[in-house]
Amino acid sequence: MPDTLPAVSDLESSMLTIIQTFHQYSGQKSNLKKADLKELINNEMNNFIKIKENDTLDKLFADLDQNGDLEIDFKEFIALIAMVTSACNELFVPKV
Amino acid sequence: MPDTLPAVSDLESSMLTIIQTFHQYSGQKSNLKKADLKELINNEMNNFIKIKENDTLDKLFADLDQNGDLEIDFKEFIALIAMVTSACNELFVPKV
Repeated sequence: MPDTLPAVSDLESSMLTIIQTFHQYSGQKSNLKKADLKELINNEMNNFIKIKENDTLDKLFADLDQNGDLEIDFKEFIALIAMVTSACNELFVPKV
Repeated sequence: MPDTLPAVSDLESSMLTIIQTFHQYSGQKSNLKKADLKELINNEMNNFIKIKENDTLDKLFADLDQNGDLEIDFKEFIALIAMVTSACNELFVPKV
């Protein structure tokens, strides 16, 4: 194995997947418009979040868009990932 | 393929890996003590964070431990993941 490729842990690989997924949907502009966010959630997070109504998408988008520029940048996106992962953690690990 | 196993996307699988890694190091107490955090970072994030001195670990732990209970709960841990993933994103995607 060439030593130019460091061994990446599963956790590091997961962090890279989050970055890759964001850029797959944001394209070169590096921001998600509302339609990009909807497509990303419906294609990549549909076991964890269901968006059935536009009202739900509008509310989520407004909550995430902290600086109000009508686009979701990477920091705003990672806040969504943190929120959904925390919710999953609470589902999978019931409080004692 | 049995229809009881839904197809999980790479992004969803990444979120599950974050949860699994946390619990691997927290054990049943579901909180990371300082030594657990050090071990997790050194074993699972060492391509992304290097902690060489105890001072650095102390400062990071204090920054993450928002409620000051001397333990890192899952929400405090996911804030670390968000911070490090955002930093990686900026390294890999230079601003134009």
